[in-house]
Amino acid sequence: MFAAVLPTMTDPHEMMYSKLNERYYMTWKGIKYHMVTKKEIADYLGISRTAVSFVLNNVQNNKISGETRERVLKAAKELGYRSNEAQKNICYLLCNREFNDSRYSLLMEDLEEIMSEQGYNLLFMSIKGPSGISKLESFLERNEADGVVVTGLLDDKIIHTLEQSGIPFVIYGVVENETGNIVTPDSELIAKEAIQYLIDKGHEKIALFTGRLDLLIHRQIFEGYKKAHVENGLVLDKLLVQVINQEDGYEMAKRMKLLDIEYTAAFCVENVIQFGILQGLKDAGTEVPGQISLLGYGYTELVKLSNPHLSTIYFDRSEITKLIISRLQHLISDRNAPPQKTVLDCIRIYPGETVNSIRSVD
Amino acid sequence: MFAAVLPTMTDPHEMMYSKLNERYYMTWKGIKYHMVTKKEIADYLGISRTAVSFVLNNVQNNKISGETRERVLKAAKELGYRSNEAQKNICYLLCNREFNDSRYSLLMEDLEEIMSEQGYNLLFMSIKGPSGISKLESFLERNEADGVVVTGLLDDKIIHTLEQSGIPFVIYGVVENETGNIVTPDSELIAKEAIQYLIDKGHEKIALFTGRLDLLIHRQIFEGYKKAHVENGLVLDKLLVQVINQEDGYEMAKRMKLLDIEYTAAFCVENVIQFGILQGLKDAGTEVPGQISLLGYGYTELVKLSNPHLSTIYFDRSEITKLIISRLQHLISDRNAPPQKTVLDCIRIYPGETVNSIRSVD
Repeated sequence: MFAAVLPTMTDPHEMMYSKLNERYYMTWKGIKYHMVTKKEIADYLGISRTAVSFVLNNVQNNKISGETRERVLKAAKELGYRSNEAQKNICYLLCNREFNDSRYSLLMEDLEEIMSEQGYNLLFMSIKGPSGISKLESFLERNEADGVVVTGLLDDKIIHTLEQSGIPFVIYGVVENETGNIVTPDSELIAKEAIQYLIDKGHEKIALFTGRLDLLIHRQIFEGYKKAHVENGLVLDKLLVQVINQEDGYEMAKRMKLLDIEYTAAFCVENVIQFGILQGLKDAGTEVPGQISLLGYGYTELVKLSNPHLSTIYFDRSEITKLIISRLQHLISDRNAPPQKTVLDCIRIYPGETVNSIRSVD
Repeated sequence: MFAAVLPTMTDPHEMMYSKLNERYYMTWKGIKYHMVTKKEIADYLGISRTAVSFVLNNVQNNKISGETRERVLKAAKELGYRSNEAQKNICYLLCNREFNDSRYSLLMEDLEEIMSEQGYNLLFMSIKGPSGISKLESFLERNEADGVVVTGLLDDKIIHTLEQSGIPFVIYGVVENETGNIVTPDSELIAKEAIQYLIDKGHEKIALFTGRLDLLIHRQIFEGYKKAHVENGLVLDKLLVQVINQEDGYEMAKRMKLLDIEYTAAFCVENVIQFGILQGLKDAGTEVPGQISLLGYGYTELVKLSNPHLSTIYFDRSEITKLIISRLQHLISDRNAPPQKTVLDCIRIYPGETVNSIRSVD
């Protein structure tokens, strides 16, 4: 065990010795030159090495008195002790996405909760565009993260930069190039389940409101949409597949009306889209779910802020966190572990209030 | 300068020497025992100390070739170099609040952007309830943060724990006990400005939809509401002051109708409340802003997700970030700096679509 020490803030250009004891450290040009050990703290206080260890490692339920504890912490601080374990850092790296998207902030909160119990600190880094790459490079070169969880909108450059660093990393999300360690939602499966859920409620004209089809995740969702139709012997009407931007849900409601496309239900690939359509339909006097049922994908704060509450399908958050962490820990302990793709299938449905059954109508 | 080195992952119980050169380090029981310096990397590669420094400190626009850069980085990695500067960490500490509240996630994103440019890492920690205190204590005792930005719902215990640690910290928010370094919004001022804005648009019956009045922030807001009335010679009707939970905006719209309280405008202390009321009013057939104008406090993602867009008053985010960082840096460089309270007054208004003028009606 050893401890790294920091430059002190006082007298940066003068050689100075510790006021406690020369043996422990000296400071010159702002840098402390001796690494203080637990043994030295123990010697200095005249107590056992074990007692110091208990206090500094924050071991609970031991027989160290409050007074001894105070003395150890005081000495550790004065001598500039830094524990070795302290340097275990996991970095949560968000790429090309705004952080007010609760999908990303909630995942980070979950990671922090579990990783901190295991003695890790969670670093946060956000990168955007080409300048983000050099920011990431210099961070990785400083060699401070023991592992990285990377998510958001990834490209090959980001993944290549991480690979070059040699630092273990786990990708969370949907990426075109699935080499390396990745935890990825089964978007095809969730779309298939979503459509099946609506079919089971008697719907046959089910629209798909989706994002740009050059993104893999939306192609996978389209695939699931198709499969559910085939399996249920339904004809797929391509007019029902409509591509929109996240923020244009409101417009979508109007578009369907203008184009006079008939549908009784829709699967929306994001809660934001679903919510926009709900507002648009309500403002146009269309009842939800009376006339149109809306099923979303995801579980953001909008689900319950909305009135009526959004009906939605999503992957279990705690399961996602568990899989990411277990994969990352495996990689940290065995750097030569072969890459592994983990496909999420822990699907949940929140019934909400925007989907109803039309069986009775048939 | 020196570098701290990490335990290696290979052969944890066997003494081993660096394959490159015995002089540089050796590993025993998983611990590397020599601190590699920039000078040694320079000697090993037969180049100048300055060149190594440029590369490892990531100094831009220098004349180091790409090849030399690669060699330095490779050697630094093989020899287990860790830079001293690398250990500068700022911790963003969120207390008793959910992180999907974008007020908190956006502040953290801003802090990370600026602090990373200055060579700091941003650590994230969330604490909740009594168990959060011991989590915080053990983190602070590990002495890893050079400074802390703390926000959320704070209590005296949290602040006391931070004070005891001796680590510089800045509080962002509204707290009862304003000792220490705090950057705090002038909630009274913003409420006064909000009411003035509505009065200037011809409104005289202005409701205040606020949170529980045992919280200081809501008492300050009530104070501003009162002052604006006094300054404009308006009588304050206490029926117009209604207390609600964040999630009950929808109920509020119904409550005002049931109690038959007349109002032409309302100031809502949160976007979430404002958004709920907007939905409630619309569903009841009340036009916004035709019949009721709604002004909110804050600038969350709801402002533009909502249709119509929310009209809202808020503090400039970049100004908040700047003030927090400059205060924290001052404290880090001068630990004996006297505590300072910084009051935010950088008020902005987003006109949105939920407030209109009723001057013409007069």
